[in-house]
Order: sequence, then structure tokens, then C-alpha cells
Amino acid sequence: MAKPRVSIPKPLRQYLPILEWGKAYSRDTLSNDLVAATIVTIMLIPQSLAYALLAGLPPEMGLYASILPLIAYAMFATSRVLAVGPVAIVSLMTASAVGQVALSGSTEYATAAIVLALMSGLILLGMGLLRLGFLANFLSHPVIAGFMAAAIILIAMSQFKHLLGIKASGSNLLTLGPSLFKNLLSANWITILISIGASGFLIWARKGLKPILSRLGLGVQLVTILSKTGPLVVVAVTTFLVWALGLDKHGVAIVGTLPQGIPPLVMPTFDAAVWSSLAMSAVMISIIGFVESVSVGQTLAARRKQRIVPNQELIGLGMSNIGSAVSGGFPVTGGFSRSVVNFDSGAKTPAAGAFTAIGILLAAMFLTPLLYFLPKAALSSIIIVAVLSMLDFSMLKKTWAYSKPDFWAVAVTITLTLLMGVKIGVSAGVILSMVLYLYAATKPHIAEVGRVPDTEHYRNILRHSVETSPTIVTLRIDANLFFGNARFLEDYILERVVGDENLKHVILQCTAINEIDMSALESLETIIDRLNSFNIKLHLSEVKGPVMDRLKHTHFLQDLSGEVFLTQHQAMDALSNNPPH
Amino acid sequence: MAKPRVSIPKPLRQYLPILEWGKAYSRDTLSNDLVAATIVTIMLIPQSLAYALLAGLPPEMGLYASILPLIAYAMFATSRVLAVGPVAIVSLMTASAVGQVALSGSTEYATAAIVLALMSGLILLGMGLLRLGFLANFLSHPVIAGFMAAAIILIAMSQFKHLLGIKASGSNLLTLGPSLFKNLLSANWITILISIGASGFLIWARKGLKPILSRLGLGVQLVTILSKTGPLVVVAVTTFLVWALGLDKHGVAIVGTLPQGIPPLVMPTFDAAVWSSLAMSAVMISIIGFVESVSVGQTLAARRKQRIVPNQELIGLGMSNIGSAVSGGFPVTGGFSRSVVNFDSGAKTPAAGAFTAIGILLAAMFLTPLLYFLPKAALSSIIIVAVLSMLDFSMLKKTWAYSKPDFWAVAVTITLTLLMGVKIGVSAGVILSMVLYLYAATKPHIAEVGRVPDTEHYRNILRHSVETSPTIVTLRIDANLFFGNARFLEDYILERVVGDENLKHVILQCTAINEIDMSALESLETIIDRLNSFNIKLHLSEVKGPVMDRLKHTHFLQDLSGEVFLTQHQAMDALSNNPPH
Repeated sequence: MAKPRVSIPKPLRQYLPILEWGKAYSRDTLSNDLVAATIVTIMLIPQSLAYALLAGLPPEMGLYASILPLIAYAMFATSRVLAVGPVAIVSLMTASAVGQVALSGSTEYATAAIVLALMSGLILLGMGLLRLGFLANFLSHPVIAGFMAAAIILIAMSQFKHLLGIKASGSNLLTLGPSLFKNLLSANWITILISIGASGFLIWARKGLKPILSRLGLGVQLVTILSKTGPLVVVAVTTFLVWALGLDKHGVAIVGTLPQGIPPLVMPTFDAAVWSSLAMSAVMISIIGFVESVSVGQTLAARRKQRIVPNQELIGLGMSNIGSAVSGGFPVTGGFSRSVVNFDSGAKTPAAGAFTAIGILLAAMFLTPLLYFLPKAALSSIIIVAVLSMLDFSMLKKTWAYSKPDFWAVAVTITLTLLMGVKIGVSAGVILSMVLYLYAATKPHIAEVGRVPDTEHYRNILRHSVETSPTIVTLRIDANLFFGNARFLEDYILERVVGDENLKHVILQCTAINEIDMSALESLETIIDRLNSFNIKLHLSEVKGPVMDRLKHTHFLQDLSGEVFLTQHQAMDALSNNPPH
Repeated sequence: MAKPRVSIPKPLRQYLPILEWGKAYSRDTLSNDLVAATIVTIMLIPQSLAYALLAGLPPEMGLYASILPLIAYAMFATSRVLAVGPVAIVSLMTASAVGQVALSGSTEYATAAIVLALMSGLILLGMGLLRLGFLANFLSHPVIAGFMAAAIILIAMSQFKHLLGIKASGSNLLTLGPSLFKNLLSANWITILISIGASGFLIWARKGLKPILSRLGLGVQLVTILSKTGPLVVVAVTTFLVWALGLDKHGVAIVGTLPQGIPPLVMPTFDAAVWSSLAMSAVMISIIGFVESVSVGQTLAARRKQRIVPNQELIGLGMSNIGSAVSGGFPVTGGFSRSVVNFDSGAKTPAAGAFTAIGILLAAMFLTPLLYFLPKAALSSIIIVAVLSMLDFSMLKKTWAYSKPDFWAVAVTITLTLLMGVKIGVSAGVILSMVLYLYAATKPHIAEVGRVPDTEHYRNILRHSVETSPTIVTLRIDANLFFGNARFLEDYILERVVGDENLKHVILQCTAINEIDMSALESLETIIDRLNSFNIKLHLSEVKGPVMDRLKHTHFLQDLSGEVFLTQHQAMDALSNNPPH
């Protein structure tokens, strides 16, 4: 059923992508989206409860964070298949941020989590409107990988207390480790059995469920749906067991009463002290959430020859988080595994997300009373099995072999995240990778070049057998010139010419130079001046068009003691009295 | 008289350059050094008193800072002619740093200034031993120029109170301005007359003294010496006038009793609170002092075809400041105008500095009683005339025309230095220039290239009339690939290929790529993966040797869907079924 074509103004279309894909929505798309939504809902119900537990929040907040955010995302975002909602890493970051301003379990704690979602939403929205998506570029892959590995360990450790049925607190290895160890002897053996059973089943179900279902001769679509029910089965079975055997009376911690019904409308608090102490965490949650979402979103989009618009994704994620805050949820972002499932299940448009939201809404309205006896150990098993499958330290090995600066960035990020928490770990990683980059930039590669015999090519004298002239030195600088390497160039040239009595000409081959900033321009003037003291002339060759255009607006070309040559070969021809030998 | 040649171990020679030049010291060198030392001493006596006043310290501390530091520098530094001692900018920074921990005029204030010298000395020494001289590279020329211009205005303003004979306090425009204005009516007219007379004479003497002395038929050397006596004449004449006319009884502020004799040996205080609150200022004083010294030192060295060793200069300046601290002085560095005078006067070795130290020592022992009636207005006139001649806002104009990011760096540095002081001004300038650089680095220049007809050259399709193939896109990336631009490249390529149905091959021409970090390597893998979804192959051409060597140690070349071609032309030959049209 083709809808009538209406012309929509461009700004509206740009900021509300739903107006684009909504126009072409068909019955086929609907059926695809509905199947995907069903599968994602089945995954999301137990996950949303579990990640709320991980964030230290009441389980229903996980459901609340999986309704309005999905609808907001569907309206504003450009990715067709990204599944937003609570995810493990962001939930851990929420716990760690909110844990600094309130006690877990208190009303203030839940309020702070809501504020955190609102702040993240506003930050993401602001970044999107100001087109600041490039800020995410400063999170290098090694820093992200190191952070993820350390965060997964912290997540797993934070769930040990539920798996064992003990009490423990802390948000990093130094605080959580001793706290767990101290209470180890008070572990509840029934809880441990539930944990072992649930985890074992989940690990098996990841690989083993699908082949069995297929052999039963069920339809492909049904097999796909049922193969994702592992966590739901765990929730149902353990809840039934606790109720049937009265295990809660034997020390098994249960979820207890959950409110039933649609999410409440919440007015977040505007306490300046809370806002300022959460600000830094909100920035990090925003950026890390954005980076994860965009990279998943881009990869999935490319598989269908589509694109996403990163700055519009910021707006989509921002609206999602604002939606989460006003409906009593906590920070959300695009989840990796859930999005892949959504994609594989055939979701065609963001409407699948909206249908998922309806599924979760139904769960919130009708399912919550059934979850009274749900043991926390079951939710923790779901979390642990989900995150441990993502644990990956290969970046340490890869960077050690490929790039030592990157290795140090990973190593520092992992170590500091484990020992001092996510905020310090990630900040240190980001700053370290920037400093290492800038340090490398202060020492650019400079090659002294000579002529490859019988050609007009000039190559590094250290790597090729080339001809040079004793009165001429040609240096090829393989970097843009800027304040960070301007003095290096001054020193390099001075060191090269001091004591070389035959030298009459220095040629800078500018093939690789796209930019000369003010500091570098003044350094070049200094170099001209110093070379004059040695009676040596400075020449340039192969200056790029845009660079030359800008130099023409300065005094530099008047001050230049030598000439600017179009090609390096012309320079050598003009400056050697004899042809180079 | 040639000295016997003794063999000195290399580490000693490296860290004690005096052992090198000392060996070759001759009677000729001695006579040159003595003349230069005399001239510099004549300049330095009034300047050292004046800069102590600028730093808010008793005048004798200026003399103390001009004895041991000069001897330490002569022993440890590589510049033959740099003249260290108190300088205007560092004195202002001292006043601003120390003013935050103690009241000007108090014992604590002087103690803090001594601690600041010790800390700067230790920082410089540490930087030298750890070879951290490159840190100075992060001070861009525009930031330095902006800082200097603003600092000179602050210095001039800080001297108004002495010129007018009023009271005022504050270390930036916002505090000092209103304070001066409020007390303007209490100005002392005799003091104003002294200021006008002294400043007028000094301004005239800078240009007018030398021609007159020459016309008197004096020897060239004597003319040179006498032409530098302007400030000394001001000191002598104004002191005499105040004494003869009893002007101190009419409200003219005088220097008063100065201690007579050699500098005291001082044990600096080790109060943790003082150290920690001065730490940041000590770092800035060290780096700014170092940058100024090194650039003057290098320029002067080049004029005699010599070089200086920046990391050894750090050690020399570090020892100077430690020397200053233990003999009751304050932070010192290499002064621009004094070094030029030293050079022009024919100084041949650092011994000239040591002889200057002896001159100042004699002044401290015998001259100080004569300075009792020296009016502070005379010293302030010396400061103002010295600094205003260096005032230079041309960087604003130059950067506006040449480079907008540099312009903003200057503008922000000037504004914040004036309004909020040197520490915040410089920090903001440094951070801003780094962020602007990194921002630019996140958006590298990428050119789509085509073949210049009948050649093997490939040029930007936007700038040249070139041949391309509809099935092939070649992108030349004019930057190293690192985490900051890796995602930009992913986006750029994806955006280029989406919707181009004919495309079969993407070639990255790697001529300008010297480094691919881990993040960029993973981005390239992502790009391969995404292009696979479009049935497009990724190829590389003209990969540099070292880059290729490192890629061979990774999975990248196995994962690459296309090939690596030695030259761009071979790539086009192999991939076009028909020759490019």
C-alpha cells in the first residue's frame, strides 16, 4: 500500500529520519519488523532486568529504560537496525558514577541514575546539534578495547556477590576484591547451585540449542526465535523453582515486588551538587555509548549498502536518554549483540524498535507480578555469561607486536580501570594516547634524498643507491609543519649543516607538506636567517598549490634566500654547476 | 698559551662543557670576554635591581640572582654568549606566583621566591637529564607572542604605582586596573617628574647617545661601553638628586637600606603547602624561560657557526636557578637584550658570564650603601622603557592573515593573560593550540586522484584535468593514519561508495602515509569488511617501505580483498579492463 507522496521540508527530514523511511513503509516491511521485534523482546526482557541489577537499580527500571528510549530512537536516528536499551558497560558506568553520590538501594540512588540519563541525553543531543561527533575520534581503538576488557572483569566481579549470595561493595579491584574475599564464607549453597545451573545452561544454550531445535523439524523462523529464549527459560525455571521449593526462605535472594503498569512520568531533580558530581561521568557515558553505537550501526548499515549519519545518531541517542530519564529509566545506548540479533532476524526499519518497546510495555504491565520469586543469582548468571563471551585481551598481544605506544595505551587503560575505576582508567587512556601521538608528531620523519641514477626520482639516501652533490643537501619532510615539530626542524637543519664546509644549498622537498602553521612559518624564517650565517641558501621544491597560495600572502617568499622550484629535479639542475655525480 | 691536552671522559665533557672550551682558553679570548663582561655588568646592575622590584622583592635579591647563577651557567651550559640573570617576564611571573602564597614585602614572600627558583632549577635539571626538552615544542609561537604582549602590558601597569608614587595591588587587568584608578589622585608630583625625566632620558639614550659619543672622537670600544650606561646614569643622577634635595622627605619612595656584602647562603624552606601551590608556576617559569633562552642562544650560536645542545641548556639553566636559590636569589633565565649585547660586545666564551658575576659581586660588596637614596620611580622607568620597546602585537595581524586557528590561539592567550593572569593565560593558549591541532588532524586532506593524460602521474581530480575509470576510485590520503582520523577515513570511503553502482575497486594511494597506528589498522579492516558488502575490493598503492614492513607482521595483508601495488600506475593498469578513459 503506497502512501501518498508529501513533500517534507529538508530540515525536518534531516532531524526526523522517520519521515523518510515511514513514507515507504509496506506490509512486507511490517512483517519483517514484527518478527525481529519479537525476538529482540524475548532477549531484552531478562537483559533489561539484569542490567538494572548491574546498575544497582530496581529491576523495573530496566524495563522502563527499554520502552520510551526505543520509541525516541526510532523517530530520530538514522540506523535502521540498532537496538537501544540498557547495556552492560553503560550500566556498570552508571553504578560507578551514581555510587559516588548515593547509597545503592536508596531513593537518591535511583534519582541520581535518572539525572545521569538526562545529562547524557542533553550532552548527546548538544553534541549532535553542534556536530561534535568528531570528539569520539579521540577514543582510540586500543583505549576502547582496554577499557572494555577491564570493565567486563569489573562487571563479572560485581556479580559474584549475587552468584554466591553474599554481601560485598566497591567499584574497583582494590575495594571490591577484599570485600568479596572477606564475606566468602557466608556464601549460600542453594544460591550457588542456582548460579551454576543457570550459567551452565546459558553457556550450553548459546551454541547447543539451535541444532537441537532444527533437528526437531521446526520452521526456520521458529528455531531462530526459540534459540534466543535461553535467558527467558532461565528466568522462568529458576523463578518457578524458588516459588515451588520455597527457596527464598533458605536464603536465596529474590527480586521481590515489582510495580506493575506503564512507566511513571518523572521530573528529574535539578540539584546542582548532584549534577556537577555526575557531569564528568555523563560525558564519558555519552561518548563511550556513542562510539559503541556508531561502530555497530555503521557495520550493520554497510552490510545492506546503507549509511548512518553519526551526528544524527547523537541526536537519536540523546533523545533516547532523555526519554529514559522522563520515564524513570537510566542511561541507554545501542547494544552490540542485541543489534546483531535484530539485524539477523530481518529488521528492516526502526519500527522494529518501536514494536519491541510495545513488547516490553506489555511485560511491564502484565509480567511483573510473576517475577516476584525471580532469584537475583539467575539475573547475575545472565549478565556474566553475556559479558564473559565478549572478554578479549587480544589487543594487548596485537599492539605489543604492532605498535608499542598503542600497547602502553591499552596496558595503562586496563590497569587503571581495574584499580581505580572506569572514569580514571578511560581518562588516563585518552590523555596518554593523545600525548603519545603529539610526542611522535614532534619528531617527524625527515629523509635526506638523492637522485635515483638516470631518473627524475629522488629517494632516501639511506635506503637507495642515489646520486648527491657535495654542495647541496635535499631534505624531504614527511609531515605537516606545525608548532610541535617546528623547533625539531630548526635543530635538524642546523645540526646537518654545522661543519659541512662545502655546503651551499639546502633544499626542502615539500611533497608531503599540506599545512605550515604560523610557528613553522617563523621557524622557516629563523632557518633562512641561520643558514645565511653559514652562507647557505634555502630553497623549496614541489610545494603544493594550497600551501604556496598561503605563502604568497606572507613575507616568506621575499625573505627566502633561495628559490621555489616546481620539481626537485629542476632544483638540482639549477643548483648543481656540474650535473650531480 | 696552549694548555696541555688532557683526555677527559665523555660523560664529564658532555655534562660540563666548560671542560671543552676551557682547554682552548687564550689571552685573546680573555680580553674579548673581559670587555663584554664590563658592558654587561653596567647593564645588569640597574636591571637586576629593577627586576627585583618588579618581582616584588628587595633590590639586593636582584644582585644575588646575578652572581652564582652566572657562574653555574658558565660551567654547565653550551651557549657561549647567553647572558642569564633576572629578566622582566620571569620576574613578573615570579611576582604573580609568589603573590598567591604570601604578602609582598613579607619574609614569607622572599622565602617563597627562593623556593620558586629552587623548584624551577630542579624541574629544568630534571627535564635536561630526562631529555624532555621537546616539551617546549608545545608552546607555539603565537601563544608565546600573545603571552609576551600581554605580560608586557601587565609589567608596565604594575610599574605605574612607582612612577606615580601611589599604592596599588593586583596581578591582572581586573584587579590592578581599578586599584590604580582609585588611588590616582594621591599621586606624588615630584615622583612623576622623576619618572618623566628618567624615562625621557632612557628613550633618548637608546638611540641618541651613541652618535654623540662617536662625534666626541672616543674609541669605538669606549663608545660601545658608554652607550650602554643610560640606566646607570639614571640611577646615579636620580639618587644624587634625591639625596641633594632631600626629596625622600617630600614623598618620593626610595630603595632604603640594602645589605652590603656577598650573597648569604640560604637553605630554602621545604614547606609542602608552599611547594605544592608554587608547582604549576614553577613548571611554567621553567618552560617559558627555557624557550626564550634556547631561541636566543640558537640564533646567536648560528651567527658564529656554532650550535647549542638544548637538553644541556636545560641542565645549565637548572643549575643557574638552583644557584640562585641557595644564594638568596629568585628565578633567572637567559635575557634577550643582554645576550645580544654580550654577543655584540665580542664575548667569546661563557667565562664572560663569570666575569660579569664578579662585577656584580663587587657591586653587592661596595655599591649598595650608595643606593640608599635611589628612587623606586627611577627603577620603574628603567623597567618600562626596557619592556615597552619589546611590545609587539603584530602576531595578531600576521595570524589573522595567515592562519585563523593561530589567530584564535593568540587572541585567547592575550585576553586571558590580561584578565586572569599569566598562569591561566598560557595554559589556555597551550591547550587551545593543541586542541585546534588535533581537531585539524581529525580531518585529513583526502584527494580523489586521476591520471594526468599520457603520464604516470596521478593528481587531484578537482585541480587537474585527469583521466579516471568508472569502476575505480583512487584516494590519496595526505596524512598519517591514527586514531584521530581513522573514523573519518571510514566515513569518507563509505560515503564515497554508497550509491556508486559501477564501482568495483577502491585504491588507497599511500604516498604520504608514514605511520598507521593500531586504531587505523583496525579501521582499514573495517573498511575492507564494509566494502566487501558492496562487492568492492580495497587495494593499496605506493606503500612506503617501513609501513609495509610493519603491515607484514599483521593479518592485514591476508584480510585485504585486493592487492598492494608498487605504483599507482601499475594498480590502474592491472585493474582497468580497458585503459582508463
